[in-house]
Amino acid sequence: MDLATLIGIVIAFALVIASIMMGSGLGLFIDVPSAMIVVGGTLGATMIHYPLKDVLGVFRVVKNVFLSKVWSMQELIDRFVEFSRKSRREGLLVLERDLWTLNDNFLTKGLQLAVDGMEPDSIREILEIEIDCQQERHRLGAEILSTMATFSPAMGMIGTLIGLIQMLRTMEDPSTIGPAMALALVTTFYGALAANLVCLPMAGKLRKRSQEETMIKEMVIAGIIAIVNGENPRIVEQKLHAFMPPHLRESRFQSGAI
Amino acid sequence: MDLATLIGIVIAFALVIASIMMGSGLGLFIDVPSAMIVVGGTLGATMIHYPLKDVLGVFRVVKNVFLSKVWSMQELIDRFVEFSRKSRREGLLVLERDLWTLNDNFLTKGLQLAVDGMEPDSIREILEIEIDCQQERHRLGAEILSTMATFSPAMGMIGTLIGLIQMLRTMEDPSTIGPAMALALVTTFYGALAANLVCLPMAGKLRKRSQEETMIKEMVIAGIIAIVNGENPRIVEQKLHAFMPPHLRESRFQSGAI
Amino acid sequence: MDLATLIGIVIAFALVIASIMMGSGLGLFIDVPSAMIVVGGTLGATMIHYPLKDVLGVFRVVKNVFLSKVWSMQELIDRFVEFSRKSRREGLLVLERDLWTLNDNFLTKGLQLAVDGMEPDSIREILEIEIDCQQERHRLGAEILSTMATFSPAMGMIGTLIGLIQMLRTMEDPSTIGPAMALALVTTFYGALAANLVCLPMAGKLRKRSQEETMIKEMVIAGIIAIVNGENPRIVEQKLHAFMPPHLRESRFQSGAI
Amino acid sequence: MDLATLIGIVIAFALVIASIMMGSGLGLFIDVPSAMIVVGGTLGATMIHYPLKDVLGVFRVVKNVFLSKVWSMQELIDRFVEFSRKSRREGLLVLERDLWTLNDNFLTKGLQLAVDGMEPDSIREILEIEIDCQQERHRLGAEILSTMATFSPAMGMIGTLIGLIQMLRTMEDPSTIGPAMALALVTTFYGALAANLVCLPMAGKLRKRSQEETMIKEMVIAGIIAIVNGENPRIVEQKLHAFMPPHLRESRFQSGAI
Amino acid sequence: MDLATLIGIVIAFALVIASIMMGSGLGLFIDVPSAMIVVGGTLGATMIHYPLKDVLGVFRVVKNVFLSKVWSMQELIDRFVEFSRKSRREGLLVLERDLWTLNDNFLTKGLQLAVDGMEPDSIREILEIEIDCQQERHRLGAEILSTMATFSPAMGMIGTLIGLIQMLRTMEDPSTIGPAMALALVTTFYGALAANLVCLPMAGKLRKRSQEETMIKEMVIAGIIAIVNGENPRIVEQKLHAFMPPHLRESRFQSGAI
Repeated sequence: MDLATLIGIVIAFALVIASIMMGSGLGLFIDVPSAMIVVGGTLGATMIHYPLKDVLGVFRVVKNVFLSKVWSMQELIDRFVEFSRKSRREGLLVLERDLWTLNDNFLTKGLQLAVDGMEPDSIREILEIEIDCQQERHRLGAEILSTMATFSPAMGMIGTLIGLIQMLRTMEDPSTIGPAMALALVTTFYGALAANLVCLPMAGKLRKRSQEETMIKEMVIAGIIAIVNGENPRIVEQKLHAFMPPHLRESRFQSGAI
Repeated sequence: MDLATLIGIVIAFALVIASIMMGSGLGLFIDVPSAMIVVGGTLGATMIHYPLKDVLGVFRVVKNVFLSKVWSMQELIDRFVEFSRKSRREGLLVLERDLWTLNDNFLTKGLQLAVDGMEPDSIREILEIEIDCQQERHRLGAEILSTMATFSPAMGMIGTLIGLIQMLRTMEDPSTIGPAMALALVTTFYGALAANLVCLPMAGKLRKRSQEETMIKEMVIAGIIAIVNGENPRIVEQKLHAFMPPHLRESRFQSGAI
Repeated sequence: MDLATLIGIVIAFALVIASIMMGSGLGLFIDVPSAMIVVGGTLGATMIHYPLKDVLGVFRVVKNVFLSKVWSMQELIDRFVEFSRKSRREGLLVLERDLWTLNDNFLTKGLQLAVDGMEPDSIREILEIEIDCQQERHRLGAEILSTMATFSPAMGMIGTLIGLIQMLRTMEDPSTIGPAMALALVTTFYGALAANLVCLPMAGKLRKRSQEETMIKEMVIAGIIAIVNGENPRIVEQKLHAFMPPHLRESRFQSGAI
Repeated sequence: MDLATLIGIVIAFALVIASIMMGSGLGLFIDVPSAMIVVGGTLGATMIHYPLKDVLGVFRVVKNVFLSKVWSMQELIDRFVEFSRKSRREGLLVLERDLWTLNDNFLTKGLQLAVDGMEPDSIREILEIEIDCQQERHRLGAEILSTMATFSPAMGMIGTLIGLIQMLRTMEDPSTIGPAMALALVTTFYGALAANLVCLPMAGKLRKRSQEETMIKEMVIAGIIAIVNGENPRIVEQKLHAFMPPHLRESRFQSGAI
Repeated sequence: MDLATLIGIVIAFALVIASIMMGSGLGLFIDVPSAMIVVGGTLGATMIHYPLKDVLGVFRVVKNVFLSKVWSMQELIDRFVEFSRKSRREGLLVLERDLWTLNDNFLTKGLQLAVDGMEPDSIREILEIEIDCQQERHRLGAEILSTMATFSPAMGMIGTLIGLIQMLRTMEDPSTIGPAMALALVTTFYGALAANLVCLPMAGKLRKRSQEETMIKEMVIAGIIAIVNGENPRIVEQKLHAFMPPHLRESRFQSGAI
């Protein structure tokens, strides 16, 4: 679980709901036709805008906003140092036994290629195409979410206009004006929530998450190449440290030989 | 038919109409002078902005938003593998018979040039100029639609201002204020619909469609060049696979001899 | 006359006026102080923003929005083919007689330089400086119009604020509120019209017109250079065809020799 | 005095004031707390945004919006042709006598360096650093003015919100609502005026003025280098003409020798 | 203390508060649920948008907006001239004694590396990585503050919508409408203050501060390298002067021998 996303959602929605509850019940703010216009209209406009498979792809990509990265950099370095030690002692093939213990597809695939005896350059090429594809998926996901953030307030306004026009045309009993206008404004409220608490910040997190994952995967590639080349565990650690900011680099080796 | 465009339009408009019907009849939202100002004013401003032939070109280009691509990548690869097999066995001229069965002008034209014995470089040059022209038409179409998306809410606001000014000048009977203001707001409603459910998302789809078509046409060029060069069917498939993301590449050849 | 500009202005203003006439007389929408604030204020802000000579230059440049280009590409090619034929038969000097029949300054100046025996490179250099100056004038004109399109709605809002403040301070007789507010909104109406039906679309057309004229003038340069170099009429046509999209190229020569 | 700035300010403010006077006295539009919020709040936000010395620098730089350039290009060329003639006849040192008659610091400093016998390359280097510093000052001035143009309407809105909230909380006597709301709107009026008639257009003029001055100073550098190199007066004129658009170049020499 | 930030905050808030006090008590403008929505909602959206550690990092980075730089350029140059003189006379090691008197981590770390006998190139490399990390932290801080400046007015609008809807649904007693709407507007007021007097200008100052600090640190690097290379004090001064605008350079050496 990505803690910040969770905390952010809880804080933002808890405060909005709490502040509503202080003045009235939540019931005033629940209106199905308003939700239909904002959610449906936004989805509809997004489907006219993007190909169907890209729109569906957003839902798969959005789950990354809630997941934290599988590996911390430090864990990954420790793992590669261990792999390097093993494979230098007993050969690359010994790593095959570890493959099934890893719960990360990218790392598993990369090690499999290494164990299969593929050349370092080919391994890098295959894995980098995979990174490119993932980055493109994430970039597209963030772009679609940003587009949705422009459509949802517009749909909110369209819903409010519908409510206002209906109210104004039929206002015979002045006592109904207030509630009708309140209902009309609920659509604007939904549109603003959808854009500012859902679409925009999720697009932002997706971009950040994509950067982090790309970095981690670049580290995995560097680690696998180092192991295939039979590098010394210390060198492996040093090469992977290059991906971290200097003040976080912490060697597991006592500074000593080499 | 492009499914996403169709579903998107149905969802968006169905929800807007359904949400209107829940509160009143559709009649409240139909007003000819409002439509005249939004549609006519937007068209007028667009014609002052762009040359006449570019504005007319939009209507021809917009149909692409509703059409799906003629060829899936897989179909195209299968077709080229077949062409390659035939032409290696019986010579390039045999392809002339297939020309009339293809319902794609670009592919037909390219094969015709090949059958006519033109050099690969000249074929590429001629076909790429055609791609450039098409891209420019689509880019211009998307640009004009985006411009219309800025004019239509502005015309909506102008229409609402007209209605408001007329209402405010002549408000003697308070009971007419509501309906007059409702009518004034209908123009804003039209402007917002035109921008957010028509112009903006169609401009977006046009850009996407143009990318896809360009990719397909680049594949056609690569395929024709490969056939003119007399490449082996397996090589043809492999060259065309380069245009697809790796996880979609699916060879029709059992992995075996070259 | 540029047909699109004319049709656009007629459509847009006719529809706005028609839609006004359906609800009331035009008189409601004519107010001299409002016009003074929007037009005068926009001009004033523009003069603080740009040097005096640039602001005055806009008026000279804006007429291009209404003029169509002097030459169609096809006419120009025909003319150059004829020049090339004549000058190859009777020498460059014979073109001097045609100079006075051309109603295009740029072409006349270029041919005069050719007839005077100037080197091709110097002709190109002199004429290209002229194109650069013209492009800069047009670019500046379009930029100033865009700036005016941001000032005019702001001045409209300022005028409406003035009207609202005056109305609110002195509202003793409720029956005057409506008309006073109507009057206040007329300024917003003017500002929106000025920005969306005048400044923005004219800035757009000016940019397009400048592109077209630059293309035509580049063709004139290419044609003059070809004639000075004594190229064969067929080659002249072929060189000038390069400026046109392929599907519009139409040779006047039966495809035959050479 | 820059004529356009002066005329622009007079036109814009005269029209705003005239249009106010037609409906009421100016008194309605003068409110000290509103001015305090807009001017003070904008200045305050600007001082949080920029270092103190940059904010103070704006006031020194803004005077350039009202000044016209000291030299016209033609005057400058005439002056340099004269310098060149003198210094070729009597040596560079003779120019020292003229130094005190020039009321332009940049030209004086440049000539002083020349008279002191400095190398052309060093003169250029020293003077160009001065141009860079001046450009940076002007760029920063224009940037700060643009920032102020975003803060001032925001402060206007904040002031209006304050007025509205106070009015709404205490509305017992309906007859006070109008005047209180009018007062609240005055702040929005000030914010709009400050942004659209002061900050934005002045930022624009500052950018233009900076371009012109840089051009003039580049001419001064070119002229001084030419004189130090002992160029012929005709060559000096020709080199300086390169900075002017061709149709403005007007030689003082009868076309004759050389 | 950064004087401009302090003066700016005092001016802006003093004027806003003064202008409130002229019309009513401050009490009208204090509302806890409104503050909860604006502050909490903005923080929540920011945490969904950015990783937790980046959001927390903003608070550490924001203090730089209030601090002035530790060293003036002139002080720094004087210090390095003194270091250079000492180390040339008594060797680099003598500087170790001064290390504990410096209250600047960056300078201390750099000198320590020099005293430890590290090569100039390695010193530069290590220190520049530190500058890059700091710049990235500041850039990220300014970016997050700008993002908060787009969320806070949106949260203000959401809060006002909540208040309006509650008011409109339950308006039985017209005398409560005013105060309820006043309360609703307080949220918009908070959102506008947070964006325009806090987030936006602080993001600006942070960018400026980061530029200044980077410049100072680049000077420190240049100074340390010069000392390690055993440069003459005059040369050290001259090299560091290159970071200052020419009119501020003031040599401590009488112009005399080299």
